[in-house]
Amino acid sequence: MDIIKEHKLSIDTPLKLKSGKTLNSYDLVYETYGQLNDNKDNAVLICHALSGNHHVAGYHEGDNKPGWWDNMIGSGKPINTNKLFVVCVNNIGGCHGSTGPASINTETGSNYGFDFPVVTVHDWVNSQKVLMDNLGINKWQFVVGGSLGGMQAFQWALDYPDYIDNAIIIAAAPKLTAQNIAFNEVARQAIMNDPDWCGGNYLKEDKMPKRGLALARMLGHITYLSDKSMADKFGRDLKQEKIGFNFNVEFQIESYLRYQGEKFVNSFDANTYLLMTKALDYYDPVSDSEFIDKISSTMTKFLLISFTSDWRFPPSRSEEIVKTLISHNKSVSYACVKSDGGHDAFLMKNDNYFDVMRTYIENN
Amino acid sequence: MDIIKEHKLSIDTPLKLKSGKTLNSYDLVYETYGQLNDNKDNAVLICHALSGNHHVAGYHEGDNKPGWWDNMIGSGKPINTNKLFVVCVNNIGGCHGSTGPASINTETGSNYGFDFPVVTVHDWVNSQKVLMDNLGINKWQFVVGGSLGGMQAFQWALDYPDYIDNAIIIAAAPKLTAQNIAFNEVARQAIMNDPDWCGGNYLKEDKMPKRGLALARMLGHITYLSDKSMADKFGRDLKQEKIGFNFNVEFQIESYLRYQGEKFVNSFDANTYLLMTKALDYYDPVSDSEFIDKISSTMTKFLLISFTSDWRFPPSRSEEIVKTLISHNKSVSYACVKSDGGHDAFLMKNDNYFDVMRTYIENN
Repeated sequence: MDIIKEHKLSIDTPLKLKSGKTLNSYDLVYETYGQLNDNKDNAVLICHALSGNHHVAGYHEGDNKPGWWDNMIGSGKPINTNKLFVVCVNNIGGCHGSTGPASINTETGSNYGFDFPVVTVHDWVNSQKVLMDNLGINKWQFVVGGSLGGMQAFQWALDYPDYIDNAIIIAAAPKLTAQNIAFNEVARQAIMNDPDWCGGNYLKEDKMPKRGLALARMLGHITYLSDKSMADKFGRDLKQEKIGFNFNVEFQIESYLRYQGEKFVNSFDANTYLLMTKALDYYDPVSDSEFIDKISSTMTKFLLISFTSDWRFPPSRSEEIVKTLISHNKSVSYACVKSDGGHDAFLMKNDNYFDVMRTYIENN
Repeated sequence: MDIIKEHKLSIDTPLKLKSGKTLNSYDLVYETYGQLNDNKDNAVLICHALSGNHHVAGYHEGDNKPGWWDNMIGSGKPINTNKLFVVCVNNIGGCHGSTGPASINTETGSNYGFDFPVVTVHDWVNSQKVLMDNLGINKWQFVVGGSLGGMQAFQWALDYPDYIDNAIIIAAAPKLTAQNIAFNEVARQAIMNDPDWCGGNYLKEDKMPKRGLALARMLGHITYLSDKSMADKFGRDLKQEKIGFNFNVEFQIESYLRYQGEKFVNSFDANTYLLMTKALDYYDPVSDSEFIDKISSTMTKFLLISFTSDWRFPPSRSEEIVKTLISHNKSVSYACVKSDGGHDAFLMKNDNYFDVMRTYIENN
């Protein structure tokens, strides 16, 4: 059992954001696993998704649950830390140590709250490049991410083609659809309609929009699972012996969702949730006026993976990226993995999925 | 342009509900279209869905928008009022005239609010039978409904087999899945978490849980449309000329959803919304201990219709009903209609769909 410590890098060089605003200084909290070799060519960047963070594998002192992708990353695992040096950073705007809405703005002495600037996938990649330079890494052998993390891996290949050999993009999409944006908007309205959100400045008011954030999480959760996985796990099972004809919890699925919502609000910041959904909404690299130049010049090799039951970013969305890459003569491998796990399948152990990852990584 | 008037039937015979509670008296508001013939064998009952009501076709005095299924019902339309006598009633628990949570409970002198009993599809069918008897109708030639309305049509065939010739069940399911219940639960939590819901007694407090109900409606709306129809209609179109990097409305889909939410709260009661979602959750006729007896004895003929892009109740759900009926040697016709309209396709004009309806109705 590996005990992992987190590190903090404090940066005073301003970060110019895509919105036009600037973060004058910021902290990046990150973890590493394995050893950087002497040639400094075995580094892997893991990019996290909406509710993820830098604690991707191993155990913190005293924890009995490992990081969120511990099945994928470690000694002998597909992302094998016996050979690779793995880095994962909490994205700015986050709520697990890197500078975000709940952090103190040193220029005002109080927390940013809703004044924290809107951040994008592009901004995250830029801040990850700053960390890369600080760690003395010359090139990522792999940049890997699922969902919103996959968008960051894609963006690395576009923005820093000389610093990345392979992008592994899992359960992602080249941009959100109207339906995707719609679900995000309902989640945002749930948070912003909660009176305890206080116009985004709930920390100053010593409040927390728990009901709104729980609702957003419940909704998100439904879209991460497949209809079949929910049916298999919960079906129409009742919580009590028989139907009560009232508005208490009747079905197990209701109980599960409420539990997921309540658990989430104790470990996540509502304003971070808002920012993450916005980063998703805005991501659309193909619409960038420099896209053709960027995609033409990158030598990055790509592995795309999708899951059959993922209806948030179904296989057709990964295939849009695949087609775009092929049309620009890029090197692309693609696997659509059979799974009932829905969008969350990218976090789950699955022999075919892990074999694809292992084989690609060992050969690239 | 037909000007339609609504009628009210006040009933003093207690209605025993499936929950075990009793409604001692209640009003049913309904509309009729066309003429009941001398043999009283040309009557059609239309059952409405979650947000529907009795105003199914034609115009009320001064209105410039017709009832919600005016494309389907009228002179020369698939449900042809030149030949058929059409009845539609606002279900009890509703908020458009029939007794519901916002009605005055004559026993207490104030509105029911959250004390209104939970009602089920079974209870609605029983109250519709009371209306039928009062109108002197001996048998429905057709009972027709989409979504939750289709569940009522199915239940008519089970509970009153001698009073129905044909059940037309459109875009329905034999019972909700865990995912269906999960979406309903998020909608309910949105309403019940709104401080203006006031424990369900907002009318007494002179408040209205507008934010919660709007949120529930926005979420519902996403599940009524297909990914493709939203993409075709809105795509990633912006509301303003360029992205503002803020939390105002950025995309057209956000604007549309907010508008739908705001419009809905002005015409719908939040407690009714809660009751309707519960009726959906509870519906599961096959689990009824008397189901085999009921389905075996009914001579009702069935038409089932589903739509290819409906992901709330996809074709496979209608096919569950079809298979159950076939396995009990019932007379079943089934059409899966190609449409991009999502679940709401059952409300939309569509040549194939309307031809199926017209042909079945003219021949049965």
